[in-house]
Amino acid sequence: MSAKHTIEQHQDAVTACVILIGNEILSGRTQDQNLGFLAALLNEHGVQVQECRIIPDIHEVIVETVRACRPLFSYLITTGGIGPTHDDITVDGIAAALNLQVEVHPGIAALLRRREVPEEVMQSRLKMARVPSGAELVHSAVGPPGFRIENVFVLAGVPAIMRSMAQSMVQMMAGGRSMHTRAIGTYLRESDMAKPLGEIQQRHPHISIGSYPFFRDGRYGTNLVLRGFDADPLDTLIAELRAMIENVGGEHHNGE
Amino acid sequence: MSAKHTIEQHQDAVTACVILIGNEILSGRTQDQNLGFLAALLNEHGVQVQECRIIPDIHEVIVETVRACRPLFSYLITTGGIGPTHDDITVDGIAAALNLQVEVHPGIAALLRRREVPEEVMQSRLKMARVPSGAELVHSAVGPPGFRIENVFVLAGVPAIMRSMAQSMVQMMAGGRSMHTRAIGTYLRESDMAKPLGEIQQRHPHISIGSYPFFRDGRYGTNLVLRGFDADPLDTLIAELRAMIENVGGEHHNGE
Repeated sequence: MSAKHTIEQHQDAVTACVILIGNEILSGRTQDQNLGFLAALLNEHGVQVQECRIIPDIHEVIVETVRACRPLFSYLITTGGIGPTHDDITVDGIAAALNLQVEVHPGIAALLRRREVPEEVMQSRLKMARVPSGAELVHSAVGPPGFRIENVFVLAGVPAIMRSMAQSMVQMMAGGRSMHTRAIGTYLRESDMAKPLGEIQQRHPHISIGSYPFFRDGRYGTNLVLRGFDADPLDTLIAELRAMIENVGGEHHNGE
Repeated sequence: MSAKHTIEQHQDAVTACVILIGNEILSGRTQDQNLGFLAALLNEHGVQVQECRIIPDIHEVIVETVRACRPLFSYLITTGGIGPTHDDITVDGIAAALNLQVEVHPGIAALLRRREVPEEVMQSRLKMARVPSGAELVHSAVGPPGFRIENVFVLAGVPAIMRSMAQSMVQMMAGGRSMHTRAIGTYLRESDMAKPLGEIQQRHPHISIGSYPFFRDGRYGTNLVLRGFDADPLDTLIAELRAMIENVGGEHHNGE
């Protein structure tokens, strides 16, 4: 069991799996903008994202993914597929995964009815009032709400709307401890310091030391990123890493 | 079974699952740059990315993910965790998932020995010569190779290196048919056209019509994206969508 295993699966850790639903990310057409935002916001509230799955708009895949992931994490968070068109199939997938009926939520329906539109358009809009039976609303400042059912939070895919819902979501979560992070960079290659770095990781099993090589302006370098539940030991360890880098003959700068 | 299900799980489809291995993406610190590139390149070679999983540097998670995904797709492609440091644990995870031993590949070792470095550094570099028994090399123009073992391709995580390996990888794959895509945009809201759009999808079960709302410069709009194995029907359908948008009272432009 690696040091990271110990840390990430810490008993105190409140965990999440993010499920991005949508063909547009898998086809390479759209760059995801939601995972990074969610991971940072959730960590502030003491929830660690431990896995992300990006899946297509296929009913059976949504059902199977939700069923497989729900027991493994404190929370599942889905984004995408809750609009009014034919390819918005997330609500039915979540309901099927939880063996629940879908019903029209009177509160959302009332909200949707505030804007006057032709009846045919309203019938399409009212699709966004459909939620699994027993769902609790996750309010948004910029449109219809998402919802929570059991340990699953269902959010919009459009980043601006997702972010508003996510701010409501974290208020509804029982968070644990936040991870702190520190970083240091150097133009040493990974292999130049792999041995002493590994020894330092061995001596600090409660801190995760990630080593991320980069190639920039024709030079190889490495960012070292520390993560742990306590901040003070990270600062101590950064000093130890500075000394190690100097000892190997490198220079260091603030990591990115 | 939705229209998309029919298309994406087409008998002729050669499929892939991309597994991004690395805590840095899950923590929100780093924005992934690999999935979109891989998805577009693979589609050019007739391989459809149907799922992506982003998982942490934890041995057991790598093993379980590879074992779970390998039977479901034509190919698995992993990125990340094949460098020389303590947190590079992908090779051992892949080998364990396939019940294979790890051995030093003489060809990679010879390549690594070309650059003269202190013996301690060389010992770390030689970690990058370790591959599962029977692995075939995936060459890179910018450093040590990745490898293929069974239907699993193991690539670097650094985008510049990954891209070079990916160009070799696709030459080693038996591809199927490529998906063609067309897009059209409008400042109509999704609900303004959800009903006629759904009817059009019903009439064209072999084309996937994705509807992607956006909010830009204070205006709501929608991009419609068509995907299918044949190009001509997509052009016909774009014309049908233009007419539908005009009929609903909207204007259209090229989609993004």
